[in-house]
Amino acid sequence: MADCFELVADCRLRAATDLFAHTWNPVVLVALHEAPRRRVELRASIGGISDKVLTETLRRLLGYGLVERRRFAEVPPRVEYALTALGRSLFEGPMRALGEWVHEHGDQLIQ
Amino acid sequence: MADCFELVADCRLRAATDLFAHTWNPVVLVALHEAPRRRVELRASIGGISDKVLTETLRRLLGYGLVERRRFAEVPPRVEYALTALGRSLFEGPMRALGEWVHEHGDQLIQ
Repeated sequence: MADCFELVADCRLRAATDLFAHTWNPVVLVALHEAPRRRVELRASIGGISDKVLTETLRRLLGYGLVERRRFAEVPPRVEYALTALGRSLFEGPMRALGEWVHEHGDQLIQ
Repeated sequence: MADCFELVADCRLRAATDLFAHTWNPVVLVALHEAPRRRVELRASIGGISDKVLTETLRRLLGYGLVERRRFAEVPPRVEYALTALGRSLFEGPMRALGEWVHEHGDQLIQ
């Protein structure tokens, strides 16, 4: 069992749950789980996210090392965003577990 | 694969990740995972939580159906908080997966 559970409020679980404190963080990670995407594709696939919020969210996820920015030397230059190995492991592990938990229990949650 | 992933921004994953939008929600769930606790025990086991924040957090978790309040007809009356079956399934599934992910990758996350 991760010893993190003993030091309840001060453990690294807080660092991870803070990831979800920004509602758009998991949404952008999910949007990138199938394939790298250009910014315009990201915005199109995520309903209701503004340009400003997408910029802030990408900046956080880049800062965490969960997403990387790939620049292609083309004319015009192409930039894509992709999950890093760390981002992929977060998606494949806890986020998939959360998605499946919600699928099974989501109706009980919503008041 | 939970079909929730197709409707990225509007799916029930948002309902679940919103659970973690309040930093203290997972902290209180972790504090209850071993055994039901009285309020005073909860505050003691969670470093840095104020009375007001604990009240608000318990109210949310009760509202979600993740925690239940048990009243014992004793003198003086005793009240305990405990995980419900739904709360237990959230803890044992996604939260444990997140705890273990953090245990393995936590250092890479913290900038």
